[in-house]
Amino acid sequence: MGDALVPILAIVGVYLFSGLRVLREYERAVYFFLGRSWGSKGPGLIYLPPLFARMQKVSLRVVALDIPPQDVITRDNISIKVNAVLYMRVIDPVKAVIGVENYLYATSQLAQTTLRSVLGETEMDELLMNREKINAILKNIIDSRTESWGIEVSAVEGEDVDPPPGMKRAMARQGGAGRRRRAQGVDAGGEVHASEKRALAARII
Amino acid sequence: MGDALVPILAIVGVYLFSGLRVLREYERAVYFFLGRSWGSKGPGLIYLPPLFARMQKVSLRVVALDIPPQDVITRDNISIKVNAVLYMRVIDPVKAVIGVENYLYATSQLAQTTLRSVLGETEMDELLMNREKINAILKNIIDSRTESWGIEVSAVEGEDVDPPPGMKRAMARQGGAGRRRRAQGVDAGGEVHASEKRALAARII
Amino acid sequence: MGDALVPILAIVGVYLFSGLRVLREYERAVYFFLGRSWGSKGPGLIYLPPLFARMQKVSLRVVALDIPPQDVITRDNISIKVNAVLYMRVIDPVKAVIGVENYLYATSQLAQTTLRSVLGETEMDELLMNREKINAILKNIIDSRTESWGIEVSAVEGEDVDPPPGMKRAMARQGGAGRRRRAQGVDAGGEVHASEKRALAARII
Repeated sequence: MGDALVPILAIVGVYLFSGLRVLREYERAVYFFLGRSWGSKGPGLIYLPPLFARMQKVSLRVVALDIPPQDVITRDNISIKVNAVLYMRVIDPVKAVIGVENYLYATSQLAQTTLRSVLGETEMDELLMNREKINAILKNIIDSRTESWGIEVSAVEGEDVDPPPGMKRAMARQGGAGRRRRAQGVDAGGEVHASEKRALAARII
Repeated sequence: MGDALVPILAIVGVYLFSGLRVLREYERAVYFFLGRSWGSKGPGLIYLPPLFARMQKVSLRVVALDIPPQDVITRDNISIKVNAVLYMRVIDPVKAVIGVENYLYATSQLAQTTLRSVLGETEMDELLMNREKINAILKNIIDSRTESWGIEVSAVEGEDVDPPPGMKRAMARQGGAGRRRRAQGVDAGGEVHASEKRALAARII
Repeated sequence: MGDALVPILAIVGVYLFSGLRVLREYERAVYFFLGRSWGSKGPGLIYLPPLFARMQKVSLRVVALDIPPQDVITRDNISIKVNAVLYMRVIDPVKAVIGVENYLYATSQLAQTTLRSVLGETEMDELLMNREKINAILKNIIDSRTESWGIEVSAVEGEDVDPPPGMKRAMARQGGAGRRRRAQGVDAGGEVHASEKRALAARII
């Protein structure tokens, strides 16, 4: 009797031991007991009874997602290349696993399409001047859409705008015009000032 | 008698046990009992009597379906390359399995053809300006067609429009013209301003 | 006597059992008893006496059939490449098996030839503008021809038209001309504006 007990105890021991899993501070396990979601577990040591439970690890760390260069045509018909960086993190691991097939891919695709559609309705000048505002608009649209996937978009940043060469020259000219105008204004203002002084001088004389 | 019972019990036990299947929270099984559809089962633990029943797993998660670049000729005869992303999910697993051969392929094909036919009836400028509206039209057409396959299309987004090089130059010129115009306006405005000041100066003297 | 009965019963049992077939909800069996068609059976469990009966499985699900690119010369002599997608399903399994060698291949070939002949009688512009109408014509012609094969064509969609490079350039030029015209208008408008301001400046001085 006693001899038979030893291998049984060993098997039970191995069974119990093999269900232990370690999750890092920033990891959560979406826990499926016989397929049913029992919410998220962790961090630390969790127990996963073999054969009965499965889990899928999700990281809660912020991810910087590079949005590859997109060809965008702005509202004023300028064709530019734009890229951006999106900062996201999972806030609800259960939704991120159950709600969507591949949350990183889906978020990346969503960011690309939102980038194109928002910038396509923006004028070139606005895009260059009000980056902060456009970043905020992008962030809000993407965040509201990824909410149901348990993902928080903390920021969308820094569209790197690459206008075509011809456009660059025109922009330089426009910039120069503003300067020439101010220069002329200053010149003329100087003349007014000077003639006032001369008139004063003439009166004095 | 007692000796014969043991292997029989073992066989029955193995038979019963081998019919157990686990479906995750987001999975459903389309259940065929002797070929007849008995609806969808799951999630969790389901029993599938071996030899009698078969099942086909379907995921209910949102899928981001990339529609590959399509050559489209717009209503105003401009040849462009367009791609898009479609977000879909299965809402009726039975229809998705019984109604159509391969629901992902069929939906992808439908999206491609709808993209071409809708954009083919749109003018280039409209396409660039009213993205939201065109996305909504695409979504509604595709969704109404996939309904009988048990598939819901939640969104079609962000056509990435890639016009031909010649068209890009023309558009850049149009965009540049707006800038040159403003530059000329600023230059001339500066001159007016300057001459007003000079006239004032002349009067003072 | 009793000993001889056991193997005979076993053989009869195996014979009866081996004739069982399972057809899924969307499948039908075209049933041939000694070569004679006895109509379609299923879905569910059917019995097929071995040696005497044969069957051929047919799926009733919708199939998205990709029609490969066809070289078409339109009525106005433009050589284009066109492809399309056809949605079909079997509605009469017996006809689909008895009436035609390989119903998928036959339907695909029919779709290709119909595509070429219908588009060959259409002008390029009509083809680009009235897609809906041409889709409907194609669908009706193909459907009326496949009816005798027990096949229903639910839709023909979205010809992807790929005109030759020269044609593309011409079309791009046509489209670009509109844009250049507008660009010139803006340029000229800017000059008028600038000269008005300069005239004003001259008058002030």
